Amino acid sequence: MNIEQYLNNQKIVVDKALFAFLAENKEFPPKLEEAIEYSLKAGGKRIRPILALAAAQAVGGAIEPVLPLACAMEMIHTFSLIHDDLPAMDNDDFRRGKPTNHKVYGEGVAILAGDALLSEAFYLLCHPNIVRQISPNVLIDVIRDVAHATGRSGMVGGQILDLEGEGKKSDADALEKIHHYKTGCLITTSITSGAKIAGANGAQLEALKIYGEKVGLAFQIADDILNVEGTKENLGKSVGSDQQHNKSTYPSLFGLTVSKKMAQDLAEQAVSVLEIFDAKADPLRGIAQYIVSRKN
Amino acid sequence: MNIEQYLNNQKIVVDKALFAFLAENKEFPPKLEEAIEYSLKAGGKRIRPILALAAAQAVGGAIEPVLPLACAMEMIHTFSLIHDDLPAMDNDDFRRGKPTNHKVYGEGVAILAGDALLSEAFYLLCHPNIVRQISPNVLIDVIRDVAHATGRSGMVGGQILDLEGEGKKSDADALEKIHHYKTGCLITTSITSGAKIAGANGAQLEALKIYGEKVGLAFQIADDILNVEGTKENLGKSVGSDQQHNKSTYPSLFGLTVSKKMAQDLAEQAVSVLEIFDAKADPLRGIAQYIVSRKN
Repeated sequence: MNIEQYLNNQKIVVDKALFAFLAENKEFPPKLEEAIEYSLKAGGKRIRPILALAAAQAVGGAIEPVLPLACAMEMIHTFSLIHDDLPAMDNDDFRRGKPTNHKVYGEGVAILAGDALLSEAFYLLCHPNIVRQISPNVLIDVIRDVAHATGRSGMVGGQILDLEGEGKKSDADALEKIHHYKTGCLITTSITSGAKIAGANGAQLEALKIYGEKVGLAFQIADDILNVEGTKENLGKSVGSDQQHNKSTYPSLFGLTVSKKMAQDLAEQAVSVLEIFDAKADPLRGIAQYIVSRKN
Repeated sequence: MNIEQYLNNQKIVVDKALFAFLAENKEFPPKLEEAIEYSLKAGGKRIRPILALAAAQAVGGAIEPVLPLACAMEMIHTFSLIHDDLPAMDNDDFRRGKPTNHKVYGEGVAILAGDALLSEAFYLLCHPNIVRQISPNVLIDVIRDVAHATGRSGMVGGQILDLEGEGKKSDADALEKIHHYKTGCLITTSITSGAKIAGANGAQLEALKIYGEKVGLAFQIADDILNVEGTKENLGKSVGSDQQHNKSTYPSLFGLTVSKKMAQDLAEQAVSVLEIFDAKADPLRGIAQYIVSRKN
């Protein structure tokens, strides 16, 4: 399959759903709405929502009931980017080639835009499109997983580890732990939740969880590599920022050659764990390879 | 009934549950845990959780299945205080007699502690104590209400209105709108959600919604009055800050005498809407009166 074509098509599906959901609930103040849309429209590969849809497809499910989850995961991801870019955190002025949210709207609005996106994600998880199509017990299970992967035991916990690690040398275990929490939990939960909504069985979920962990770490190693080798034009953000912040990364610990090998090995392990699935899992296989070969 | 005694007893019940829930899930980094506990332990009247429990009691329900909701509402309230106190928002150095979260832990950790509390609230709403005791469809309805009351169409939307209103004169309608979103939505949802979990019928929910709106506004007017008349010792935070920030408030628009009359009228209207309930609603009646007579 042509994975780039697939990703482009799915991105269109996700974006259409995302902005349709957003438009359903236009009660809120225009300034907040503008700041939320600014960051959601600033691009992004939509990799988490696409993984959620691909996982549903792999177990033979329809994508319609998975769309609210897929969009919720993108909202949570976008919330985390807005807060991570703040001066008190990574202090980044550019993201995806555009000024960061707080550079445009000010810090107060940026903090609130992030808060609103996080709340909206849970609102969306209770959307009629999902509620009327799956068992309420499965949905509660999914909401619990998403909350766990987002908060202190997931992404937010990882961001604290990252913040504490700045200026300190981390070893490989500490680095893997940061990435597991900061990036891996949300990616894995996008995949397993998409599959749960689509009716996955226990063995399928177990395989997809391992796939998610491998792909999540590969994604982060590839990010670290791009932060060294990428260009500002491709990435839309400053390169070399990890080194400036004195952050430990895979290239700084292992060098570029070994880091690339590690990412490639993880992608291959991710593909091999999908052997229990038929051709319907080809998009997941393609995404694993894409993640380590991407240029942005 | 002795409402002060009742509130003290319920505060103990809430605090016990709150810290027990928090301790169940200790995976996260110590620094984040410390910052979260700091703000949760910094006191507070626990008025939202107590209202949730009192609403359940009013419709004849047990408090046990309502405790996760009650604690979730306090977590959301605490998250909002931490973010509101930030330099980019109200820039407050003291809260409940103690330095604000960011003064102790720094802005980055404070932002993340708020984010973690918001996520944790939704995790708690899926707690086994609630899941095994009520219908999953009711729970999904409650989660949707809480997310709506928290985000862009609720508290966060209200905070944007408040931020935009600083330094500008608001009229009475604009002021009521800010308070409705910023404070009222979360208070009303605490009450109606507690009642939904306890099995309230439609007429009861309708009455409790009106009660919540009246009490929520009365609470805010009383807050505005305390900001003028209160002492730093009683409030544990700076007084006169509204005037310093050039914020429109009920006293600044209507004067103290009229503002007090408005708050008292709202409390009486709140009580009168409870006429369909028997003596089990006495705590709700007492809370309405307490809210406008409190000294902190």
